[in-house]
Amino acid sequence: MPPRDTAATTADLDHLAISALRFLAVDMVEAAKSGHPGAPLGQAPMAYLLFARHLHFDPASPEWPNRDRFVLSCGHASALLYGLLHLAGYDLPMAELRRFRQLGSKTPGHPEHGLAPGVETTTGPLGQGLGNAVGMALAEQLLAHRFNREGFALFDHRVWVLASDGDLMEGVASEASSLAGHLRLGKLNVLYDSNRITIEGSTDLAFTEDVVARYRAYGWHTTEVEDGNDLDALDAAMRAAAAETARPSLILVHTHIGYGSPNKQDSEESHGAPLGAEEARATKEALGWPVEPPFLVPDQARLAFAHARDRGEAERQAWERLLKRYAAAHPELAGELARRRARALPDAFADLLPSFEPGKGMATRQASGTVLNALRDHLPELVGGSADLAGSNNTLLDGEGDFRAGEPGRNLRYGVREHAMGAAMNGMALSGLLRPYGGTFLIFSDYMRPSVRLAALMGQPAIYVFTHDSIFLGEDGPTHQPISQLQALRAIPNLVVLRPADANETAAAWAVALERTTGPTALALTRHKVPVLEGTRELAAEGVRRGAYVLRDAPEGAPAVLLLATGSEVSLAVSAHEALAERGVASRVVSMPSWELFARQDALYRESVLPRAVRKRLAIEAASPFGWHRWVGDEGDVLGVERFGASAPWEDLAKEYGFTVENVVARVEQLLA
Amino acid sequence: MPPRDTAATTADLDHLAISALRFLAVDMVEAAKSGHPGAPLGQAPMAYLLFARHLHFDPASPEWPNRDRFVLSCGHASALLYGLLHLAGYDLPMAELRRFRQLGSKTPGHPEHGLAPGVETTTGPLGQGLGNAVGMALAEQLLAHRFNREGFALFDHRVWVLASDGDLMEGVASEASSLAGHLRLGKLNVLYDSNRITIEGSTDLAFTEDVVARYRAYGWHTTEVEDGNDLDALDAAMRAAAAETARPSLILVHTHIGYGSPNKQDSEESHGAPLGAEEARATKEALGWPVEPPFLVPDQARLAFAHARDRGEAERQAWERLLKRYAAAHPELAGELARRRARALPDAFADLLPSFEPGKGMATRQASGTVLNALRDHLPELVGGSADLAGSNNTLLDGEGDFRAGEPGRNLRYGVREHAMGAAMNGMALSGLLRPYGGTFLIFSDYMRPSVRLAALMGQPAIYVFTHDSIFLGEDGPTHQPISQLQALRAIPNLVVLRPADANETAAAWAVALERTTGPTALALTRHKVPVLEGTRELAAEGVRRGAYVLRDAPEGAPAVLLLATGSEVSLAVSAHEALAERGVASRVVSMPSWELFARQDALYRESVLPRAVRKRLAIEAASPFGWHRWVGDEGDVLGVERFGASAPWEDLAKEYGFTVENVVARVEQLLA
Repeated sequence: MPPRDTAATTADLDHLAISALRFLAVDMVEAAKSGHPGAPLGQAPMAYLLFARHLHFDPASPEWPNRDRFVLSCGHASALLYGLLHLAGYDLPMAELRRFRQLGSKTPGHPEHGLAPGVETTTGPLGQGLGNAVGMALAEQLLAHRFNREGFALFDHRVWVLASDGDLMEGVASEASSLAGHLRLGKLNVLYDSNRITIEGSTDLAFTEDVVARYRAYGWHTTEVEDGNDLDALDAAMRAAAAETARPSLILVHTHIGYGSPNKQDSEESHGAPLGAEEARATKEALGWPVEPPFLVPDQARLAFAHARDRGEAERQAWERLLKRYAAAHPELAGELARRRARALPDAFADLLPSFEPGKGMATRQASGTVLNALRDHLPELVGGSADLAGSNNTLLDGEGDFRAGEPGRNLRYGVREHAMGAAMNGMALSGLLRPYGGTFLIFSDYMRPSVRLAALMGQPAIYVFTHDSIFLGEDGPTHQPISQLQALRAIPNLVVLRPADANETAAAWAVALERTTGPTALALTRHKVPVLEGTRELAAEGVRRGAYVLRDAPEGAPAVLLLATGSEVSLAVSAHEALAERGVASRVVSMPSWELFARQDALYRESVLPRAVRKRLAIEAASPFGWHRWVGDEGDVLGVERFGASAPWEDLAKEYGFTVENVVARVEQLLA
Repeated sequence: MPPRDTAATTADLDHLAISALRFLAVDMVEAAKSGHPGAPLGQAPMAYLLFARHLHFDPASPEWPNRDRFVLSCGHASALLYGLLHLAGYDLPMAELRRFRQLGSKTPGHPEHGLAPGVETTTGPLGQGLGNAVGMALAEQLLAHRFNREGFALFDHRVWVLASDGDLMEGVASEASSLAGHLRLGKLNVLYDSNRITIEGSTDLAFTEDVVARYRAYGWHTTEVEDGNDLDALDAAMRAAAAETARPSLILVHTHIGYGSPNKQDSEESHGAPLGAEEARATKEALGWPVEPPFLVPDQARLAFAHARDRGEAERQAWERLLKRYAAAHPELAGELARRRARALPDAFADLLPSFEPGKGMATRQASGTVLNALRDHLPELVGGSADLAGSNNTLLDGEGDFRAGEPGRNLRYGVREHAMGAAMNGMALSGLLRPYGGTFLIFSDYMRPSVRLAALMGQPAIYVFTHDSIFLGEDGPTHQPISQLQALRAIPNLVVLRPADANETAAAWAVALERTTGPTALALTRHKVPVLEGTRELAAEGVRRGAYVLRDAPEGAPAVLLLATGSEVSLAVSAHEALAERGVASRVVSMPSWELFARQDALYRESVLPRAVRKRLAIEAASPFGWHRWVGDEGDVLGVERFGASAPWEDLAKEYGFTVENVVARVEQLLA
């Protein structure tokens, strides 16, 4: 083994490691017969340098809370990331690299958080990673603000991103970058790989803006590296970015896609398909790398990361010692941190939830704000805000400050940037130490849907406060009235959707959302007042948890008809139940705040709520009837909304769309006829 | 009536009209007891000046193809637009202004295209209007390129946008603006109302970027007006914007939200709620407007638009005369234009569609590209592209050029900007003269969903080419594999979703999409090869139009089981049908490319395809089973995907997820047991 302290040797090691990274990626793609070799060939030097010199991490402790984060926003360059993690010493053995893109491997086509250690977030859908990174940088600030004390800088880390042209074309990245500049997130550093090639060809086809000028307009610090292979220039730029603490930094790095490939460099042909055996060989030859064997990793290529690894290990151990001293000096905070690391709620959490007297009218969005504020002081991990609708979404934590540069309060002001909010929430949730919530109108869940889906895919417990959840938002009209959104959300695997009927169900819905640690939850809440229903104070806690429960029943024997309803339509179902009783029709009202939770119950419970023998069923929900057949069955009917809404006072819409006691009674009588 | 040619009088008229606009808006909001008075109070001068001096329009002929377009991107300022249209002479009577935000009025809370004449697009969801306007500016270029001839400038109009802080925070606006700058859409002019207030409060809370610098970075021409009440400065800026033809223009106009309101000017309180009777009165007094009666419109306020109206009428008439001469000089093009204005397809359109021999394997995305190119020369209104996936989506028109500044070919290069693509497609469709299509992977339909929904709400026939439509896209993994997207699209009212089984069904799906003129269509297409099935050449044209049809049946009598499938799973169902036959089980295969179209068929046809008597049914679709219960009923089953996908070769995924003949047979046997 050569000595490690001469400049020449360092340069050799650098070169070796970079080549190893390049050709691991090439060979992984060749072996998989699919993938993206071009980006790794161009990005290898900056990625290597970042890991070897700048990133603080301990491969043996990938969950160390104060590690620097690395986000590969251009997830298609996954082969580069897997090679990096492997060489840097993470538990990602060569066998996994050889199984790139194969069923059950830890090395899927795009990086998935939770498979290989060191993959900080799931990327591939462009722009999301950068949005996540903004959330990670927010998280760092929030955690430092909460936990750091004189002499105890528990949280003090950076977030590094590698992003591509495609990332920076996406609107979500624009929103997130504008927000990051506004919030002066100085620990966020973005390496922008400008190779000027996208899938269709040259960026001249579609992307000729001045990206650096745009980022300066956002308030970012920017630098430019003319040659992505120039390690000294890269090093200087990374140092400058790290030194700049008042603003986020963008480092534009000019690279060549498919670098070294004699026939495919600088061509979109190297982007998304294997180079092919011949071209892979030619590229190895061109860059002076042995053609055989594939997956070659000289020991020195690992050695190149030794310093970073050693430093990271020492830092992590020092941090653990610091944490021990912290526990002695600040036992309460240390206890809270331990609780939060375990994703546990405070003891007697359920007792903290407010309950509401029956009879009173209260919009569920208002109940949600009441719950949030009841929990505020007990759950400091609750942080959130709204995409410029805080007052309407009732998302403000009273008495808490706004998140500002240098003074990171728990109220986040996202601006009219729903998508960045969703992406940033994922980044915050990934800290494992925060419970982010975010509000907008249900209709605008569409604007952030890609991030909601990724939360579900990653199993991150973000909480969405989607208010104004039906046509009954009224006069704002069909542009703002959700018809398909509830169903579109319900169709996402691992997302729990809750549409509570009243204030008590809303409190129970928050409990479900907060107890959930393996995936996101969406709350659909009314704009208008709905009565607090008789019975929910007693039944909602358990009933909401089970997804559906019997709220009103036939006085004796089996009901003739089941009325299934969610949200604001439950009180309508209750009124119809009473009107039907007067007509001698025995009905049961099932409040069904969550289809997903109910579907998970055992057969016995499901039968107890929806007995197979009762075939006459009417579902009532002011949304698309899509999907309700599962619950109402062949002899059932759905009172839903099969067209777009309209601009009018909500009471007029209730009549126009048939959400009246008279119409429910008529529909039931039709069913029974 | 005062003379119209003195400067003093013009200024008086200007002032009067601006005040009338302001207080019409205030009074509309007061009468409706909801709405947004703040923006109209600040925006009235620029909006007035635009209509009175710069916009070319003829209120008597709101569909005149060469009119300038005005897009109110900040749709919440609808009261301003309604006032403008009323005063300018559009057929929007005072009675409608008085019914602002009431059921059935032409003046809903946010402007809806198709209700009041002069409302060029439906706005309210922020950022969309600006995206639509980019599409309108693209349309102008495409139409001019196609139809203009020496001496016949049939298409030569501008697109003006009024946008707010909120619009410019949205990612879709960023994407669209970057694209507009790249394409040098010189006829696009945006008035940016910078009142520095959003719903939550000052823009200082969340939006402190340098917007003008950002737009310069996009390649736009920019100017700034210090005082939004300074008509001379506004006039100069609009002139400069109109004179700049090489770049789109942004005019930043500093205004005051709630201008004139003694207690609510410059406050978010004036944004989204009525001023209240007292403050409305105080505002009128402050601006020297009679307190009573409400809805006051002095004759001179209408007179202020007389010049614009007269000019527009003369221009429109001149255009009609030009068109007559054009018909003589260029009869073929004139005929094409007339056909396109009627939204009619060429004669014998159906004969243009290719048909495919059974047996051959062909991805439906590839079939789609074949169809598109077969139609290319016959349907010059077909224009489209992809969000940087043209090669994968098979959206390129062979031999056609790219759309570039000054050379607008029919192949559009959107870059990685799905949302801008969706919004721009709406703008192009609104021309009534283009049939825009746009491609991306089905998973990324989520990125553009708000625009898809607005196409459906507006009834605009955009065509989405969503390829890579299931887990069978393979190695790219779950980040790219759609699970919920089909169902999320099917839940949108007035969107037709088509998932063709093979190449022949794909051709039929294109026919359905192109014949449809009242709403958008989404095609879901495979990445991988699927066989051209026996029978589709004969049956698909009619079968796809009806949404579902019998592709294979029991040899005699009723089948024991129905196999319902879509897309790539139809060939699996056919194979299972054969395997079941060998086991003595008679099955029917129903290919069901479109749920929406099938649901529209009469009861007789539906019964002929899905007989009530056959209760054993298995649906097969590689997507969320959500919603299938409607078709399989209480005794049916669904072979779908209830979790996220995985990264692996597609054949391995077929095994892993149970999409094999063996598993289908086993599921059927379970059903029949």
